[in-house]
Amino acid sequence: MGRDLGVTAEKQDAFSEWYTQTILKAELIEYTDVSGCIVYRPGSFAMWETVQAFLDAEFKKLGVKNAYFPLFIPEKLLQQEADHIEGFAPEVAWVTHAGDSPLSERLAIRPTSETIMYQAFAKWIRSHRDLPLLLNQWTNVVRWEFKHPTPFLRGREFLWQEGHTAHATKKAAEKEVAVILDIYRRCYEELMAIPVLAGQKSEKEKFAGAEYTLSLEALFPNGKAIQACTSHHLGQNFSKAFDISFQNAQGEKEFVYQNSWGFTTRSLGVMIGVHGDDKGLVLPPRIAPIKVVVVPITFSKKPEASAQVLERARKLCAENNWHLDDRDHHSPGFRFSEWELKGVPVRIEIGPRDLEKDVVVVSRRDQEGKQEVPIAQAATVVDNLLEEIQASLFARAKEKLESSITDVSSREELKAVVSEGKLARAAWCGSVESEEEIKAATGAKSLNMQAPSDDACFVTGEPAQGVFVFGKSY
Amino acid sequence: MGRDLGVTAEKQDAFSEWYTQTILKAELIEYTDVSGCIVYRPGSFAMWETVQAFLDAEFKKLGVKNAYFPLFIPEKLLQQEADHIEGFAPEVAWVTHAGDSPLSERLAIRPTSETIMYQAFAKWIRSHRDLPLLLNQWTNVVRWEFKHPTPFLRGREFLWQEGHTAHATKKAAEKEVAVILDIYRRCYEELMAIPVLAGQKSEKEKFAGAEYTLSLEALFPNGKAIQACTSHHLGQNFSKAFDISFQNAQGEKEFVYQNSWGFTTRSLGVMIGVHGDDKGLVLPPRIAPIKVVVVPITFSKKPEASAQVLERARKLCAENNWHLDDRDHHSPGFRFSEWELKGVPVRIEIGPRDLEKDVVVVSRRDQEGKQEVPIAQAATVVDNLLEEIQASLFARAKEKLESSITDVSSREELKAVVSEGKLARAAWCGSVESEEEIKAATGAKSLNMQAPSDDACFVTGEPAQGVFVFGKSY
Repeated sequence: MGRDLGVTAEKQDAFSEWYTQTILKAELIEYTDVSGCIVYRPGSFAMWETVQAFLDAEFKKLGVKNAYFPLFIPEKLLQQEADHIEGFAPEVAWVTHAGDSPLSERLAIRPTSETIMYQAFAKWIRSHRDLPLLLNQWTNVVRWEFKHPTPFLRGREFLWQEGHTAHATKKAAEKEVAVILDIYRRCYEELMAIPVLAGQKSEKEKFAGAEYTLSLEALFPNGKAIQACTSHHLGQNFSKAFDISFQNAQGEKEFVYQNSWGFTTRSLGVMIGVHGDDKGLVLPPRIAPIKVVVVPITFSKKPEASAQVLERARKLCAENNWHLDDRDHHSPGFRFSEWELKGVPVRIEIGPRDLEKDVVVVSRRDQEGKQEVPIAQAATVVDNLLEEIQASLFARAKEKLESSITDVSSREELKAVVSEGKLARAAWCGSVESEEEIKAATGAKSLNMQAPSDDACFVTGEPAQGVFVFGKSY
Repeated sequence: MGRDLGVTAEKQDAFSEWYTQTILKAELIEYTDVSGCIVYRPGSFAMWETVQAFLDAEFKKLGVKNAYFPLFIPEKLLQQEADHIEGFAPEVAWVTHAGDSPLSERLAIRPTSETIMYQAFAKWIRSHRDLPLLLNQWTNVVRWEFKHPTPFLRGREFLWQEGHTAHATKKAAEKEVAVILDIYRRCYEELMAIPVLAGQKSEKEKFAGAEYTLSLEALFPNGKAIQACTSHHLGQNFSKAFDISFQNAQGEKEFVYQNSWGFTTRSLGVMIGVHGDDKGLVLPPRIAPIKVVVVPITFSKKPEASAQVLERARKLCAENNWHLDDRDHHSPGFRFSEWELKGVPVRIEIGPRDLEKDVVVVSRRDQEGKQEVPIAQAATVVDNLLEEIQASLFARAKEKLESSITDVSSREELKAVVSEGKLARAAWCGSVESEEEIKAATGAKSLNMQAPSDDACFVTGEPAQGVFVFGKSY
């Protein structure tokens, strides 16, 4: 593979350029004429399908059912909860015409579906026996951000699931909002090998309309933190605005307690950014669409030996569900580079000499070096290697995240820490004013609250809400 | 269940009212404030997931890969193929503003994705080695129809899959377009127990931009035919408009041959309409989200016997993955009616007397009558019964479809046949003029071509293109 086909930017020194080259050259995305709207090519969409399968199975175990609500939300409906519309109005894409005709009321393309869903919840929920109501949908959403778009990480259209649930008691809702966050954590940590910080967002950073928001935060290689997903406890904010009430067992009217929670295609961008290296993608085996590629080495001058190699390679692939790359119009070296660029966790070479020795040559994507493995043991060795790679990617990223967190006790220390591309940790009061002050002085935002604290706030000296982590944020 | 909870309209006499009541009361859909945009509640969405799983597995066997292309298509791009834009322009929903800002170019919400996909195909396809390119996506699409919307059958937003493929030769493309139609046929016939007529659409009724369109057509109980799905051979119409070309093995430039094919949530409406009866839904077992419901009959005056009944019912449900309805705040009669309304194929009752005799009482939704079955044999009997119901629903619908087709040899005969709610069959030339003449004289459209023919056209006397079926169309 020539330089123009491979990634030419170094991840450490030119992260943005490296990221863009990697996702384009590894055939994960394609740009379109609409800024912020990308094509998810099969290479990335297959990973999204793996995320979907993981999360969907976990949701269903909780009794959550899938549904589908319309793309269009009438303007009046979107405005029904005051904080919510204030948060989303600047980013709404509006449909004003159909064919040649102007619409009588313009329609928002859903930026999120609270309003359209909760109008229906109000119709469906009558009695405590209708609760909990646990719905989820897998959809596209549109938020017309005016910041610079980056594929997966910040786009104007993205894919996600949004869960929306109604409960008879605050306790039941608060239990669920945490259970969901833990499912999200497992998806990041177990499937994508990304360590995350789980905690509660500050008052300023919570979802528009929520009582509080829980989040996962990850550390990006450029030293910035990135919000990985959120799970919101909405309290009774929406149920009062939409009149979602029920008769309890005593025959009294009560408003439901609600949650909403979402996981988006941003997760793919986080994974690409965290694990990749100068050669391109490095995919954790559990999410890699192709886990093992077999490259037979054949020689036109040795047709008989080559035919044997090819036959053996085919057999191995059929037996183990490995991917065969028999494109003999490309050199082995070209093919090796392409599979490295695409991040396939394990590569197996087999040539005439290997076959004579009854071995294959196995390489792992995340480390240098090759090993010869007897063919009879190849399946077992590779299965173990895949697990080892998964664990090793996670351990490396976890070490990096943990070592980047530094305790601070003043704004000056915080500023110094985040300017080095690290995360700062401190006991903090959590107030909106104080957050704005910190932002102005240091450029950092609060990420989330890691633990309660009895200490005083490092900014105001007032009692702390808890120990928060701060960082420059993507 | 009171009359107000059950379906009050008779299917035979008041089909539209019956259909609307059934889908609302069986909790399949909810209306929203936007006409033509409905909520797919879990009861219907679960069936769509079953359709998705069936089709997706078949597509993947063919090597088709899933991807995702943007919702928004710039106006200029949508106009790039002349017939295509002419067909879709009247139904396009336009986004003109984002937040408070007007957009520089208005954006179409995809009515179908040929144009946005083929712009990318032109970038990706260079060599014959890049072919075939076989992509599919599962998405929402918007067609702002001004006809009266009907849930599932005609809406402004619907869900579908759209496959888009590019081939080196016309032969390869034409083979695929027929293979896909057969997968669709199996989905209707094997999964949904709906017999269909497979064939080629007339020149007038083909897709805007296609060389020809294959379709499946079903017979609705109101005597109207309904187009069930389509598979289009696009020839080189789009590849020339979008410059999708490749170097063949001889180094010459050629344009690709393309297909596009789609299967929509309309299929659910067809199934509901064909199988339902005056009590509501009748679901074929293979697509029913709940295949078997167990209703324990308990008595507050017999607490001990009731506890035993409940325990046995729970055990049966756990062993066989049946649904337990232990809502003892509703009478057994109420619960029976609700499961009938929801179309659950098999209902099992078990009460204290049944338990004494070691039997359960089994009813099938599609026929009257109950049978006592020894508990030890219940699982086997029910499994066989589910297969029998599936086969029986299909056979009944097939008999009805076949007996409704009548051969005709003049416009007068055709008019008489279709006015009785039947389908007419005749050798026909297939011309646009002749189709318009037939429509004006009889109210009928051609559905599709069933077979070649050496006969003369029943309208013009010219050589026939083939034997077509005609009917009033939904």
